[in-house]
Amino acid sequence: MRYMGLLHTYQSMLPINEATPMLTLHEGNTPLIHAEALSKELGINIYLKYEGLNPTGSFKDRGMVMAVAKAVEEGSRTIMCASTGNTSAAAAAYAARAGLNCIVLIPNNNIALGKLAQAMIYGAKVIAIEGNFDRALEIVREITAKHPITLVNSVNPYRIEGQKTAAFEVCDQLGDAPDMLAIPVGNAGNISAYWKGFKEYHEAGRSTKRPRMLGFEAEGAMAIVKGEPILEPETIATAIRIGNPASWKTAVEAAQQSEGQINYVTDEQILSAYQQLAAKEGVFAEPASAASLAGVIKLHQEGYFTGGESVVCVLTGNGLKDPNVAIKTAGIEPLVVPDTEEAVMEAIQRLEREEG
Amino acid sequence: MRYMGLLHTYQSMLPINEATPMLTLHEGNTPLIHAEALSKELGINIYLKYEGLNPTGSFKDRGMVMAVAKAVEEGSRTIMCASTGNTSAAAAAYAARAGLNCIVLIPNNNIALGKLAQAMIYGAKVIAIEGNFDRALEIVREITAKHPITLVNSVNPYRIEGQKTAAFEVCDQLGDAPDMLAIPVGNAGNISAYWKGFKEYHEAGRSTKRPRMLGFEAEGAMAIVKGEPILEPETIATAIRIGNPASWKTAVEAAQQSEGQINYVTDEQILSAYQQLAAKEGVFAEPASAASLAGVIKLHQEGYFTGGESVVCVLTGNGLKDPNVAIKTAGIEPLVVPDTEEAVMEAIQRLEREEG
Repeated sequence: MRYMGLLHTYQSMLPINEATPMLTLHEGNTPLIHAEALSKELGINIYLKYEGLNPTGSFKDRGMVMAVAKAVEEGSRTIMCASTGNTSAAAAAYAARAGLNCIVLIPNNNIALGKLAQAMIYGAKVIAIEGNFDRALEIVREITAKHPITLVNSVNPYRIEGQKTAAFEVCDQLGDAPDMLAIPVGNAGNISAYWKGFKEYHEAGRSTKRPRMLGFEAEGAMAIVKGEPILEPETIATAIRIGNPASWKTAVEAAQQSEGQINYVTDEQILSAYQQLAAKEGVFAEPASAASLAGVIKLHQEGYFTGGESVVCVLTGNGLKDPNVAIKTAGIEPLVVPDTEEAVMEAIQRLEREEG
Repeated sequence: MRYMGLLHTYQSMLPINEATPMLTLHEGNTPLIHAEALSKELGINIYLKYEGLNPTGSFKDRGMVMAVAKAVEEGSRTIMCASTGNTSAAAAAYAARAGLNCIVLIPNNNIALGKLAQAMIYGAKVIAIEGNFDRALEIVREITAKHPITLVNSVNPYRIEGQKTAAFEVCDQLGDAPDMLAIPVGNAGNISAYWKGFKEYHEAGRSTKRPRMLGFEAEGAMAIVKGEPILEPETIATAIRIGNPASWKTAVEAAQQSEGQINYVTDEQILSAYQQLAAKEGVFAEPASAASLAGVIKLHQEGYFTGGESVVCVLTGNGLKDPNVAIKTAGIEPLVVPDTEEAVMEAIQRLEREEG
């Protein structure tokens, strides 16, 4: 009955051999929650794949456990990545677990220490360069090509292998693949990984169909939708603020092969979906995560659904990763009243009237 | 294969009847992680029950799903609690999920908006009174006694019923009860709930033994250890900064009946355990959570263990709930270097030398 982690659960579908350590922090096995209120509202069956309950709070753990296990297998003592966000946290946690060193390279401009705190508490060594993010990634690639240090950015091919297990889980949890899968698109690695997973599970006879893939970029970073890189991408959904997606080609293939689409949503639509997830379903996700639901609501308004379809919305990260957006969005100062029963009851009734 | 939540999984052991809604956000089913590095170091088998991966990031979800389901069953439209922390987040999330209103009462002094943001994004209405926390709780009790509003603070008897399921899960995951269970003690409800759960599972024949209960208060809030309430409790572990535990009596009973103990740990020991959990095992927990491991390390130093015992450490909340402690604890500014391969390699080698 004890869950043993992704590598153990999906061993036969992963590049695992006798020398691969069964590394785990019990990543995966994340909830697939039926969104009851939203399903009723939209007339379709919406499920939320809540990846924020992975060990470091994002879907990145799925790819990282595979990449770090292979690094151990290959005799590496150190892993390295360029990242200021979820990737560095996942890399640092699995390096700690595996007893490896972890080096995180970041640009020295606009360092948000809060975002790095998670990687640092796991013991990662953080080095800031006097250059931008692209230059940081370039240096990581140069160093890892020449030294016995393993690159764990998304160009590491094992990352996508681990990430594809999310598609397996969705099929296992639903009993089959859903009709459609909606997913935020930033670097486009995750939509590529899900599509790979759905295809492999279908080929292995473990699902009867494959879903339409519905990918959603943020309007201010919609490189694929526009058909050209965005030089200065801007969106409140920082986790998908990427102007030149690394997995551009495979994302377009996923949409085409599945008869789905790559579309976009505005920051306003993202924030509205973010609030609805929390207030209507009780699920607190990162702002970028809400792009999937925002896209489904947009398509619903355009008459895309015929009714009754099963649609899985991928929620990529935990809302606790970026509490400042919640503070600004909730934005309400508490109502201050005297400390009497009467004053408090009056306040409750006032709030109920405002609501109604 | 799809997990259906606590009420469904442990239905026969809970106060559930045909009228009880099967409310869930997929709480429970949290990882039990074998702490490999720490087990080797201490010569015992340490497992981490990582409750931070509950839907709102703490163990409070277990009790709250039961309390809110019963509120719905009883026809309540509104739930209410006095809380500035994890309880309010859990109450707000399950109220949102169940379509109920949620009122959170807090004292108006020292409001930390960050801590309330989570409850507010789930749609809870927050009212601040011109009085202290005890007065807030008093008013909640007065109002809920007279109006059709359900009290969901820990005096709600269904809270402990839901919380005891964590003990069931530990037994199911290990195949039996562990030799010992180490747990942080603040309000003392959780140690009481675990002990109730272990006793009931044993009586039902679903485990062959019951663990010794090892509870740990923070030194600055060690009311039970001292045998008297602490008027101004102080500790970095805010979630257990409680000077007059509500479940004092049942916590002492748990320790006595199980031949365990209620002991204490210093803030320094808590912070050390907090860092070791992250850096040695890759698990990021709330500071208060680390009191369980800190206590086990303290007992180890005192020669308490004979070797080889199985000890489950309960980690009550997610580290992302309180990132400021991580920022202060990690405390290292990144090393800034020029953007050349040589400079970065030199920095890596320097960090490795410092590491020793």
